[in-house]
Amino acid sequence: MIKTKIFRLVEKGSHGQRMNRLFDYFIMSLIFLSMISIVLESIQTVNVRYSKVLRDFNLVTIIIFSIEYLMRLYVSDITHPSANRVKSALRFIFSTYGLIDLLAILPFFLPMLIKMDLRFLRVLRLTRILRVLKVNRYNDSLNLIWTVIKEKKSELAVTGFVTILILLLASFIMYNVEGEKQPDKFPDILATFWWAIATLTTVGYGDVYPISGVGKIISGLIAVLGIGIVALPTGLISAGFMNKVENRRGTTNKSCPHCGKEIE
Amino acid sequence: MIKTKIFRLVEKGSHGQRMNRLFDYFIMSLIFLSMISIVLESIQTVNVRYSKVLRDFNLVTIIIFSIEYLMRLYVSDITHPSANRVKSALRFIFSTYGLIDLLAILPFFLPMLIKMDLRFLRVLRLTRILRVLKVNRYNDSLNLIWTVIKEKKSELAVTGFVTILILLLASFIMYNVEGEKQPDKFPDILATFWWAIATLTTVGYGDVYPISGVGKIISGLIAVLGIGIVALPTGLISAGFMNKVENRRGTTNKSCPHCGKEIE
Amino acid sequence: MIKTKIFRLVEKGSHGQRMNRLFDYFIMSLIFLSMISIVLESIQTVNVRYSKVLRDFNLVTIIIFSIEYLMRLYVSDITHPSANRVKSALRFIFSTYGLIDLLAILPFFLPMLIKMDLRFLRVLRLTRILRVLKVNRYNDSLNLIWTVIKEKKSELAVTGFVTILILLLASFIMYNVEGEKQPDKFPDILATFWWAIATLTTVGYGDVYPISGVGKIISGLIAVLGIGIVALPTGLISAGFMNKVENRRGTTNKSCPHCGKEIE
Amino acid sequence: MIKTKIFRLVEKGSHGQRMNRLFDYFIMSLIFLSMISIVLESIQTVNVRYSKVLRDFNLVTIIIFSIEYLMRLYVSDITHPSANRVKSALRFIFSTYGLIDLLAILPFFLPMLIKMDLRFLRVLRLTRILRVLKVNRYNDSLNLIWTVIKEKKSELAVTGFVTILILLLASFIMYNVEGEKQPDKFPDILATFWWAIATLTTVGYGDVYPISGVGKIISGLIAVLGIGIVALPTGLISAGFMNKVENRRGTTNKSCPHCGKEIE
Repeated sequence: MIKTKIFRLVEKGSHGQRMNRLFDYFIMSLIFLSMISIVLESIQTVNVRYSKVLRDFNLVTIIIFSIEYLMRLYVSDITHPSANRVKSALRFIFSTYGLIDLLAILPFFLPMLIKMDLRFLRVLRLTRILRVLKVNRYNDSLNLIWTVIKEKKSELAVTGFVTILILLLASFIMYNVEGEKQPDKFPDILATFWWAIATLTTVGYGDVYPISGVGKIISGLIAVLGIGIVALPTGLISAGFMNKVENRRGTTNKSCPHCGKEIE
Repeated sequence: MIKTKIFRLVEKGSHGQRMNRLFDYFIMSLIFLSMISIVLESIQTVNVRYSKVLRDFNLVTIIIFSIEYLMRLYVSDITHPSANRVKSALRFIFSTYGLIDLLAILPFFLPMLIKMDLRFLRVLRLTRILRVLKVNRYNDSLNLIWTVIKEKKSELAVTGFVTILILLLASFIMYNVEGEKQPDKFPDILATFWWAIATLTTVGYGDVYPISGVGKIISGLIAVLGIGIVALPTGLISAGFMNKVENRRGTTNKSCPHCGKEIE
Repeated sequence: MIKTKIFRLVEKGSHGQRMNRLFDYFIMSLIFLSMISIVLESIQTVNVRYSKVLRDFNLVTIIIFSIEYLMRLYVSDITHPSANRVKSALRFIFSTYGLIDLLAILPFFLPMLIKMDLRFLRVLRLTRILRVLKVNRYNDSLNLIWTVIKEKKSELAVTGFVTILILLLASFIMYNVEGEKQPDKFPDILATFWWAIATLTTVGYGDVYPISGVGKIISGLIAVLGIGIVALPTGLISAGFMNKVENRRGTTNKSCPHCGKEIE
Repeated sequence: MIKTKIFRLVEKGSHGQRMNRLFDYFIMSLIFLSMISIVLESIQTVNVRYSKVLRDFNLVTIIIFSIEYLMRLYVSDITHPSANRVKSALRFIFSTYGLIDLLAILPFFLPMLIKMDLRFLRVLRLTRILRVLKVNRYNDSLNLIWTVIKEKKSELAVTGFVTILILLLASFIMYNVEGEKQPDKFPDILATFWWAIATLTTVGYGDVYPISGVGKIISGLIAVLGIGIVALPTGLISAGFMNKVENRRGTTNKSCPHCGKEIE
């Protein structure tokens, strides 16, 4: 059957399926080349010269991606089994990968609606690499990281919330202190918030900085606080990873290999 | 009784009380809107146009906040039970939330005393979000973080103290080294301290930096030291979180393997 | 005896000795005031006006510090017992605190030898605070931090060594790449090393940065590497603190409080 | 035999061999001096004056390094035993140290092929310090660090991969947002990627920064994300080190408490 063949081509992913692997690598390469073509198109000197080639390549990419999307949609009743065909199709369309694939082609068909160049959304398709690699190790790693972040979610959220309160407070004070002295750099509280973020994260571009004494003291405090803002999540995540490592050990070797009795 | 009703409105906080929840969300929204109005007022173009609206909204906010404060004060003998009414009222006024609420309205009534725009103190009222959320999870997280920081207090204090000594020493040396070459950037030791903070926290705005060889060496040393200043508190806090995680686990298996009695 | 009295004044440090505590606080305050006077002297406008007062205060400070030093030297046979008086005196002079105290007064008596203003060395005397506090907690914390750093010494040294190799390599390459394009910013390898340090520690003042493509790639690599340079020592120190916490627990409750048998 | 003597000179490395140690220190010093000569040559004022001395020293260095390399090649059948002489020689040439030594001299003999000054490759020879030190402690530390990094390889790779995806996405968006407003700073996506790296690593030179509102929001998000990019690898490496410390302890009490036999 043609449907089974398409399914095997786009989804199967078993290591023995040579065609499927070739297809995966082909799509992956196309995504990569597509990324590079967007980068090249942005470079003026290149664009002037190879404008036509790049536009044609873009068109070819969209056509292939569209065919691939339709193929995936066609076999969605196998990949996303549901009560009926329509539900299967919808389940595919609103799955994470389904949405990403749609975002990669949709902007092309809606140029009148969206003015901005949204082709960059294709970069999201690179997440398929994790699937193409098919090495479980990487998926395990991603899962581990994700689990730890989720476990510490509420602590990280509280840290983030307190940070935002401090940033707001610092912005309000700073605006009152530096606003008059540097009206071009601290024109309003939004602009001052930009300074607060740049200082707390220790980026410090140097486009905005205090010149008054009080402003410098506040700036210094925020910068020192930035160290705490790094230390807290790092500590939380360290503890999370440690916990995972210990748990894993705890579940594996709990019996003596010689007498079979439990240890600890 | 009217008093019980007011108490239920402003304080009860049980999940079944619909009125109380509505009141909480109403005050919370007002604080948020108040924040936004302060931000908008700071933007010149917006202020010129909506000056009157913003001023009126500010007035309304203050009136509502004042009524809320008086209501809380009125029921303080229930929320802060004490020997007599006056003591209850004082206990409320000098409680953390009581002071925050007072700070949010007081500046309005003392415009002749305080010249500076202190409305930004209302941002502190946002801490009530933690209470409004009423989800214990976030309070637990906040408590966990706070406990770890308190536990490592003396280690963090010593790290901070040594850091300040190093910053002072670096400032004194730097002033002697760069002061003559860049009298506008390193005019005195206070200004040099500003450079020291910006370098140690790796913010590096770029407004002040050494140009002499010796100055660059000192700057480099301070910057490298900045890595240590990040590593020490992070390590301390990581160990603190780990310890907490292990303790919690430790409380599950708390019986002696020999006699079976509970330990700790 | 006068000697015992002096000893009790400058060294005893038992909590019951009121005179000794007063003396400690007096010296401590003098060191603080001395620091402030150095800072004030550096500020032009203050110096012009209070030049004489500051100079006089400086003289008084030096006299008091000198008397204190002589007093400590006089009782060194009690504080640093040795075979004979001379050896005791030498042991005091070359002890850490002895050297610090000497450095705080010596520059004043050698103005012809040393041109530079070395009064900032007095900042080192602030380390006495740790002694004045006499709270063991802070000394314990300092010891804990010091022990962890010492334990991880060789790992930290190796990290530092590899870092320096990478910085050197990056400087050599960068000089070849950017030297021609920005001869004023990357005039020689020493100046390029300054860029390397500023990039690796993520300070990024903005006085020196690459403009060529290759230069930007190297700069990006060094900056990313900077994250690793933060992660490695932080990880080492975290593990060190964790280890200490576990060891302490391991040594305390190793027997069951009920049956007395050892656990684990 | 002369061969045994050469072998003892260049390779033996036993602590009793005085000649070998002298040879090691001699070569090490030469590498150091060679580094310094390259740095000095880059400084214009020094080069003008001592140009001839430096060139001569460079020649002498190359000759000695070449002789050393030939000596090591000559005894490669002892140091890299294999089926025959040629295979031994090849095994030496393509060993890590063999390649490093070759890279240190080769550029001199191929001036017509390679235009760039590749003498900086000699810095790699400094890795021999780890061998010269012959203190196992440092090798152990290096191995420990290396083992931890290798263990966490896949997690670090996934973190790196996600980071690159985010950077690409940020660059694509930023180019669309700021490209028109600051065509000189964000001329194409490659240049925008440079901004993304500088922001994520919180270097923030200040040569490129957003001025539009949307650009500042994206910049802030990337900077905040930079904290996560520091926290994740640090947490992973902390857990790795902790694990190692615990394992090592685990090897001391390695017998089953029930049957007494050794475990693991």
